[in-house]
Amino acid sequence: MGAHPHASVPQTGSASFGGLPAEPGIGEEIFALAAEIYPICRSITGDGVRETLAHLARHIGLTVHEVPTGTRVFDWTIPREWVIRDAYIKNAAGERVLDFRVSNLHVLNYSAPVCARLPLAELKQHIFTLPDQPDLVPYRTSYYAERWGFCMAHNRLADLPDGLYEIVIDAGFRDGSLTYGEYLHRGETDEEFLLSAHICHPSLANDNCSGLALLAHLAKRLAGLRTRYSYRFLFAPGTIGAIAWLARNEHLVPRIRHGLVVSCVGDAGGPTYKKSRRGDAAIDRIMTHVLRHASPAPNILDFFPYGYDERQYCSPGFDLPVGLFQRSQFATFPEYHTSADNLDFIRPEHLAASYRMLATALDIVESDALLRNTMPRCEPQLGRRGLYAAIGGDSAGPQASMALLWVLNLADGRHSLLDIAERANLPFLIVREAAQRLQEKGLLVPVDACAAGEARPL
Amino acid sequence: MGAHPHASVPQTGSASFGGLPAEPGIGEEIFALAAEIYPICRSITGDGVRETLAHLARHIGLTVHEVPTGTRVFDWTIPREWVIRDAYIKNAAGERVLDFRVSNLHVLNYSAPVCARLPLAELKQHIFTLPDQPDLVPYRTSYYAERWGFCMAHNRLADLPDGLYEIVIDAGFRDGSLTYGEYLHRGETDEEFLLSAHICHPSLANDNCSGLALLAHLAKRLAGLRTRYSYRFLFAPGTIGAIAWLARNEHLVPRIRHGLVVSCVGDAGGPTYKKSRRGDAAIDRIMTHVLRHASPAPNILDFFPYGYDERQYCSPGFDLPVGLFQRSQFATFPEYHTSADNLDFIRPEHLAASYRMLATALDIVESDALLRNTMPRCEPQLGRRGLYAAIGGDSAGPQASMALLWVLNLADGRHSLLDIAERANLPFLIVREAAQRLQEKGLLVPVDACAAGEARPL
Amino acid sequence: MGAHPHASVPQTGSASFGGLPAEPGIGEEIFALAAEIYPICRSITGDGVRETLAHLARHIGLTVHEVPTGTRVFDWTIPREWVIRDAYIKNAAGERVLDFRVSNLHVLNYSAPVCARLPLAELKQHIFTLPDQPDLVPYRTSYYAERWGFCMAHNRLADLPDGLYEIVIDAGFRDGSLTYGEYLHRGETDEEFLLSAHICHPSLANDNCSGLALLAHLAKRLAGLRTRYSYRFLFAPGTIGAIAWLARNEHLVPRIRHGLVVSCVGDAGGPTYKKSRRGDAAIDRIMTHVLRHASPAPNILDFFPYGYDERQYCSPGFDLPVGLFQRSQFATFPEYHTSADNLDFIRPEHLAASYRMLATALDIVESDALLRNTMPRCEPQLGRRGLYAAIGGDSAGPQASMALLWVLNLADGRHSLLDIAERANLPFLIVREAAQRLQEKGLLVPVDACAAGEARPL
Repeated sequence: MGAHPHASVPQTGSASFGGLPAEPGIGEEIFALAAEIYPICRSITGDGVRETLAHLARHIGLTVHEVPTGTRVFDWTIPREWVIRDAYIKNAAGERVLDFRVSNLHVLNYSAPVCARLPLAELKQHIFTLPDQPDLVPYRTSYYAERWGFCMAHNRLADLPDGLYEIVIDAGFRDGSLTYGEYLHRGETDEEFLLSAHICHPSLANDNCSGLALLAHLAKRLAGLRTRYSYRFLFAPGTIGAIAWLARNEHLVPRIRHGLVVSCVGDAGGPTYKKSRRGDAAIDRIMTHVLRHASPAPNILDFFPYGYDERQYCSPGFDLPVGLFQRSQFATFPEYHTSADNLDFIRPEHLAASYRMLATALDIVESDALLRNTMPRCEPQLGRRGLYAAIGGDSAGPQASMALLWVLNLADGRHSLLDIAERANLPFLIVREAAQRLQEKGLLVPVDACAAGEARPL
Repeated sequence: MGAHPHASVPQTGSASFGGLPAEPGIGEEIFALAAEIYPICRSITGDGVRETLAHLARHIGLTVHEVPTGTRVFDWTIPREWVIRDAYIKNAAGERVLDFRVSNLHVLNYSAPVCARLPLAELKQHIFTLPDQPDLVPYRTSYYAERWGFCMAHNRLADLPDGLYEIVIDAGFRDGSLTYGEYLHRGETDEEFLLSAHICHPSLANDNCSGLALLAHLAKRLAGLRTRYSYRFLFAPGTIGAIAWLARNEHLVPRIRHGLVVSCVGDAGGPTYKKSRRGDAAIDRIMTHVLRHASPAPNILDFFPYGYDERQYCSPGFDLPVGLFQRSQFATFPEYHTSADNLDFIRPEHLAASYRMLATALDIVESDALLRNTMPRCEPQLGRRGLYAAIGGDSAGPQASMALLWVLNLADGRHSLLDIAERANLPFLIVREAAQRLQEKGLLVPVDACAAGEARPL
Repeated sequence: MGAHPHASVPQTGSASFGGLPAEPGIGEEIFALAAEIYPICRSITGDGVRETLAHLARHIGLTVHEVPTGTRVFDWTIPREWVIRDAYIKNAAGERVLDFRVSNLHVLNYSAPVCARLPLAELKQHIFTLPDQPDLVPYRTSYYAERWGFCMAHNRLADLPDGLYEIVIDAGFRDGSLTYGEYLHRGETDEEFLLSAHICHPSLANDNCSGLALLAHLAKRLAGLRTRYSYRFLFAPGTIGAIAWLARNEHLVPRIRHGLVVSCVGDAGGPTYKKSRRGDAAIDRIMTHVLRHASPAPNILDFFPYGYDERQYCSPGFDLPVGLFQRSQFATFPEYHTSADNLDFIRPEHLAASYRMLATALDIVESDALLRNTMPRCEPQLGRRGLYAAIGGDSAGPQASMALLWVLNLADGRHSLLDIAERANLPFLIVREAAQRLQEKGLLVPVDACAAGEARPL
């Protein structure tokens, strides 16, 4: 029972968290928000992050934090803010052959300023291309080594004639702060579920916009619900943002019972779940279960210390139960970190499916429980209680029927609903529904109610 | 060492249980008994069960129990007895187009009585057929909802012309009792091995007759043997019979160390073993071992809460170490619950093979033991003791030779013979024979004898 | 952490054991020694063993032990020495049609003497051939049953015309002793790594010469190095030699922490590792790791009680952590125990590869350690410390980079370097190198140094 089901049954009553059913249009809403924030030029610091958070704040009551430049956060120091106004390369005719205003990917992210006239050969040393994907613009950064550079399609570079080019990167660095957004949905306990998305990539749709938009909408829908857990949403720049949050919130870390880093959730691939460092945390079991029942061939990966901010959450000094949820696995799809990771690459239906998987995970976290069969010796007579009849008319008949038998058989106070779902190889929600039916008939009680002699609804 | 070998070596002496070798003709004897009881119209209550038990009682000293109608057994109530005298459908010419006297499958088992004249269209609503197996008659029951009905071949129904039909089910219900048979072979201890077969199906050869006949003959052969365990044989109607036995014998339940439900053991398929709910009970290891060495591709299944009376024995309040032994797995062969499950479907050679598998399981249960190599430092010199020579002349040479080495290597007082057989991937009987040879040469002693300084034969 | 890494970090300082890099020519040197000892007619006793040990003693300071005939060693008795001077079969023309001087395989090893004139039919009962490999001479022995015999190619025997043959085996038995050689490389502790090769086969190149020569050269190279463990090399006749050593050295047995029997290490097959009886000893994990990174498809076998002297070391009264290392698995290659196991069958490159695998195993044994990340909360900033730059220039770049991240992530004082290498699926040496870099930067300390506040180099 690695899933740590509730020691006591949730005190949620009939107004409790009843799941987050996928509403019609949820995929479109998420997509619309992703499209809204897509054009913004984000980096690890600066106004791009603030502007993005302002968009998210239209949906949820976001708290925006500013961590001053120079602040020590563990082994790191908050860098200066990057300011970018314009960037271009002009040919001899004065035409912009590369223009930041067309795509913010064209400038090396966090590039130093430059203003010069250079021969092509020399300029090329500062231009990143993808020779194997010659029509795409790469996304490149240089956060911790000061240099300047451009990114462009290999074919466009190849087309440039020799000669002198005027180059301008009208950018700068200033003391300021690192910005991140935080939203806390308070549940009945202060045990927390952390949901974290990075907010430092410029116009990349799947790789940052999709996760930001999905989490914002998940938070929005949670807002109206009573939950057992508190849900903390974090929208922070990759690496340095997560490190800053951890450094400033060490007192909150012990509260984190479950966590997910969410990114690249809008494409058609996957789904992918990369386990936490622990490998057997409840969230690892839960996400494995959810993905196995959502997809015929999910990609379930053991932890490895490379990726998104699970690197920080799973560093050995924290070792938090935080996994990574994606559709296509990062760095394995050809659009990754290129101009092809645009709004055509993500689809409302994939965003909706990702939303449903997360919502199911929350369902499990909220409602997993230990139960006890009140008639444990031999099977109770189900027919007499209308439980066979009820099943007969169900479209989910055979599964529902088997779920009833499984719950009765394993509800011995030592198996949680998730344990039962796993052993029965049935979706958690089917098993929970069976448990609810049995509880209504008095055949099942939560373990603590068992002791107290009173049954509460699931 | 999940198999719980004897803490002390069996006190069986030289007159001990030496196995149940398949006697020539055992398959034919079992088949003959199955054929004898095949025509009887059994149901969950009534004279069909009593008549069947009378046949079994010619072989073993059976105790017949009657549990009165209306008795509460856990969540269930013993139903009335079903009496069936005749049933038919007559056409306009007064000819029986369906006749219970031809096959007792033609009437819905436990059907309410009826006597009417109905047009075909209305009659059809009470006739069960198998459109996908149009020449077979299905076996159907309605124990806990009162209704009447017939079963017939789909093609025969299709041949019936429209018109009025005279229909009669000359049946009834009466207060009486539920009947089951029990036979206890007393061993040296009152630890029990439960062997259970259902006795509630009418003319279905594999699905009830085969199991009843096999267990009766197993019990008959055990009768002459000294055993360590006591063996309880139960011939009871499915579900309600097992529930009744459990309800009336809760004081015996703690004695049950091993158990098997036995059904469908006469066809050419399988063998199949479905594990107990525990999954790691000794019987689970033993049957897995037996089937793996009896068949190239045995069907070893984890427990699931659907099937025969293992459902009751493995309900969470009992959680007994009881598995299910079959040839073809129930509900997976086309003859299942149809008129094709007749005496042509079962064969003496398959019954004999099933008998041998059970007999080997009993062998293991009786003779598994912890042993200790008396010369544990380096290998003893086998050649000097004639153990290599003896092997050379054996047809089972290489296996017997490896068995000697395995037993010497693993007989450290912590590995039982079954542990050794599993690790060596050798049949238990070969390993036991090797252990006997080594014990004769003084190279091996049972662990308790080790302490006491005296060796007893295996 | 089955590998029992050092409780305290090795006190080896900068002059420590730094591995045994494969020197150019090591394969040729081993081959040359194997070729030197190949012609000698060894048996389980006698001058052949002594002569072989004299060759090995040119490389290492060998101690030669003589155990007198008649000495009891556990269940066995040291046999008489076998003396063989000549053996032949002469035809009617007085020509040697079989000649011991051509190949010592031609005489049954440990054969009794004979001098007779026999008709072919009678002689044939004393001649061993391989009908399925008709051009090869088999290797056969009769140590513990006194008889005489010859071995020859089946085709050559078939060519012999009927008639009388003069046969001579000019051999004898005398009271003397069993001889074995021992070399101890003393390390900083008296915990021992046992390396054992058999020395009782006559002209078989892979099956005894290769192992003897490889271990002699390994011992020679160790001689100049400081090690934590002491390394005991044993060159002893199969079975009786190992038994004699164990019987005379029971007081040393508790010192043995790791051990390998080494044989058949010069052919192109495998590599093969057969685990110790324990199955989870450190040497089992280590050799599994080494072979998996040295070969795409290594042959990793569970223990079985048949083979070389691991049978004795792993007898239940000792149960030592001793496995068997080979290229092709014994008894599975067609050259095994035939005249085809000659100097053409073994190659310097295979001997060198086998040497490297053993050397890597010693590396792991010597340098596995528990470490602790000094900045466990979030990742340290590697770029600032030149650890990313350093990697950029590496040919082993991606592996080295991942190794840095893995070591930082898992160095929590509970994972040894081998644990990390296994989980990261990286070669141990890459992981150790990453750990050394991190230690140089102060990001890693050995666990005991951690407590003591001081770091020592790996």
